[in-house]
Amino acid sequence: MQTFFTPKSIAVIGASRDPSKLGYIIFSNFANFGFKKLYPINPNADEVLGIKCYKSILDVKEKIDLAVIAVPAKTVPQVLEECVKKKTPSVIIISSGFSEAGEDGFKLEQQLKQIIAKSKTRVIGPNCIGIYDAYSQVDTLFLPRERCGRPKKGNISFISQSGAVGSTILDVLYSRGIGISKFISYGNGMDISERDLIEFLSKDKTTKVIIAYLEGLKSDGRKFLQTVKRVKKPIIALKAGKGKKGGQAVSSHTGSLAGSSKIYSAAFKQFGIIEAENWEELLDYALAFSTQPIPRGNRVAIITDGGGFGVLAADEVERLGLALPEPSQQLKEKLLARMPSYVSLHNPIDLSGDADAERYNTALKECLASKEYDAVILITLFQVPTLEDKVIDYIIKAKSFKKPIIVCSVGSSFSEGRNKRLLEAGIPVYPTPERAVKALNALVKFSKK
Amino acid sequence: MQTFFTPKSIAVIGASRDPSKLGYIIFSNFANFGFKKLYPINPNADEVLGIKCYKSILDVKEKIDLAVIAVPAKTVPQVLEECVKKKTPSVIIISSGFSEAGEDGFKLEQQLKQIIAKSKTRVIGPNCIGIYDAYSQVDTLFLPRERCGRPKKGNISFISQSGAVGSTILDVLYSRGIGISKFISYGNGMDISERDLIEFLSKDKTTKVIIAYLEGLKSDGRKFLQTVKRVKKPIIALKAGKGKKGGQAVSSHTGSLAGSSKIYSAAFKQFGIIEAENWEELLDYALAFSTQPIPRGNRVAIITDGGGFGVLAADEVERLGLALPEPSQQLKEKLLARMPSYVSLHNPIDLSGDADAERYNTALKECLASKEYDAVILITLFQVPTLEDKVIDYIIKAKSFKKPIIVCSVGSSFSEGRNKRLLEAGIPVYPTPERAVKALNALVKFSKK
Repeated sequence: MQTFFTPKSIAVIGASRDPSKLGYIIFSNFANFGFKKLYPINPNADEVLGIKCYKSILDVKEKIDLAVIAVPAKTVPQVLEECVKKKTPSVIIISSGFSEAGEDGFKLEQQLKQIIAKSKTRVIGPNCIGIYDAYSQVDTLFLPRERCGRPKKGNISFISQSGAVGSTILDVLYSRGIGISKFISYGNGMDISERDLIEFLSKDKTTKVIIAYLEGLKSDGRKFLQTVKRVKKPIIALKAGKGKKGGQAVSSHTGSLAGSSKIYSAAFKQFGIIEAENWEELLDYALAFSTQPIPRGNRVAIITDGGGFGVLAADEVERLGLALPEPSQQLKEKLLARMPSYVSLHNPIDLSGDADAERYNTALKECLASKEYDAVILITLFQVPTLEDKVIDYIIKAKSFKKPIIVCSVGSSFSEGRNKRLLEAGIPVYPTPERAVKALNALVKFSKK
Repeated sequence: MQTFFTPKSIAVIGASRDPSKLGYIIFSNFANFGFKKLYPINPNADEVLGIKCYKSILDVKEKIDLAVIAVPAKTVPQVLEECVKKKTPSVIIISSGFSEAGEDGFKLEQQLKQIIAKSKTRVIGPNCIGIYDAYSQVDTLFLPRERCGRPKKGNISFISQSGAVGSTILDVLYSRGIGISKFISYGNGMDISERDLIEFLSKDKTTKVIIAYLEGLKSDGRKFLQTVKRVKKPIIALKAGKGKKGGQAVSSHTGSLAGSSKIYSAAFKQFGIIEAENWEELLDYALAFSTQPIPRGNRVAIITDGGGFGVLAADEVERLGLALPEPSQQLKEKLLARMPSYVSLHNPIDLSGDADAERYNTALKECLASKEYDAVILITLFQVPTLEDKVIDYIIKAKSFKKPIIVCSVGSSFSEGRNKRLLEAGIPVYPTPERAVKALNALVKFSKK
């Protein structure tokens, strides 16, 4: 499997000189990055982007680690057969027109399965956009970089049955400055399934968190859940096709059976998969796991300079069943010693609309140092004129307590600049109190796995 | 009430020369905008920002339409008494330290009530940030504009019990380029309550949609709901303090009783208030009402170039009980006549990953022109290399069908630039399929009021 991500030699079958063709974009991704052992395969061209072209992969003398296939569906069986003959260990089939496309396509996919059945060749796809690896820069995405950004290096890996959902989320990760390790769009999952990918990522050194967009399972349900149960890394999944209509749409999209939503949700819960309700939650949770330690319990302190936001956060904490204990008398006295008398020392701790960085620092440090709280939700409204930028340094320093710190902050450029500084220092920032609390709740859930 | 928003003469009581004081920021907002009849009141200054200062509002010879009070709580009764003597019709009390701040504060607020009891003076506040009117530029917000943006002119009016929540949302509206008419933070709502404000806004010509952040009601519950029922404009509310802890926090924040969440939700539903679960929903719904017509029914067509997103939207449509009918045979034939055979003509209509602008235009126009659909959810992934910018013009043109068009689109700068063009042309754009469908659902709910 590793050869998919760190191939020494790559063939692009269907590499094209026409910039509007997928085969052009995929080949140019590799060429632009400067992969040296790169072979365009196209019977109708002598060269692509100045690189010598071959009529068939069998004409290449060197060993090929990874072949990417982007030719019309009908031609795929033949070129796949040639890949097998060439003993190519890893093949990505980008082409669509298989089990997602009615009976003829289904038969064509069966043919592909027979071709690889007795070989050592492993296949990702068909009907997918393949791989983006932020470390090795393997990039089979046919979406031009000016339209669809590629995230920087990080510790989140992402598997997606849908190429469109996958690439859009990649583009968002890029725009938010959140790094990833590996992205795999596996489409119809004809050979390599979500189970294989999760198994592989569970051992991948640069992967700390696994996120998944699933339509239906391509692997045996029971085996999938057993694998998931064994994996010690957090797995967060967004399941599509929960409704009747959505389920029907799934089958014409990646040829899957969506299955009952309730069965999925129950199984996810039982086997320790954290379920996201939409892609924003998927990324919210991924960001928390990517940056924060797992809490030891569920006792939350809410610290804010905006009373109303404190109330909304408290509502969400209660709704999700997290604990919101009052500070002890001893802790209150410690806080009050360095704060004006009109701050509200309940929980939420409302530092008041004239809060400054020192007041935040006192509350943050004392709550994290105490044995009374397992995590802090910090709602900082940078709009408040008294709040100096020093507060950012204080928040970053507080990471040393090794308890989760989740920030809620939102606004226009002034606040966004400060949020960016926090994010770059590994402090997750969310726009609503509810999303901040939900992200913390995901960490608490995982602590019980 | 109108004098709050279009005063001809303004006194700022507590106007200060110290830039760190609220009284400075508030006064400078008015001075910078160039309000001519502007009077700083401060017994310890001769002038503020070059404008002659008075020791008391009673020393001003001209009539005062609006007085803004930003002095310590204990001094407020005296200056309010002077405002009453001066027959000032509108007073905003920014100062805090009243019923939200324990027993002494409660007594002080009672004193204020007695002062205005027999007068014609109406009061907003205390413990609030007052008013921002995008048309008249009345702006009592003590948050500097470089930290907290002020939205442009528009048709949404926004009342907020919390100043922090209110100003943060204003800052977000500013950054998203969404316009407003009037913003009113009414804090403890000692005199003018949410009911008075909604009553006023229901007749305000530049207000099409009313949004509200509420902690507890300041007016009689039954009367409030009767008012709401009469109002023909959409009212969207975010209610904080739903939980036990949140309810307690509310009382130390704006001195309100939060009340039971279930009673509120049931009453909201019965009297036609659309409830938002968080501030993102509040703005999502406001944007839809601000720009889109009310649909005649609940039949939705989902049109997309990203199969997975179509599935997620279909799931949400089903969950919310909207209808997702298949296109009729006749409509399918019309579509197929101008599309490749591999598009999926169910609902969602999946135009496939190589969709171009013409394909979108055909689907959009035929669905809107047909009698089969009341609204369209359009999920456009601009990342797709085949999708030309012409699609934006087609979407904007489709407004002429006078049916709601809700777009889901997200990504980095390439997509964001295109989303901005849509937003500026009055097409609402949401980042997730779920949020797009929920916004449409809010319109459908209102159509039944």
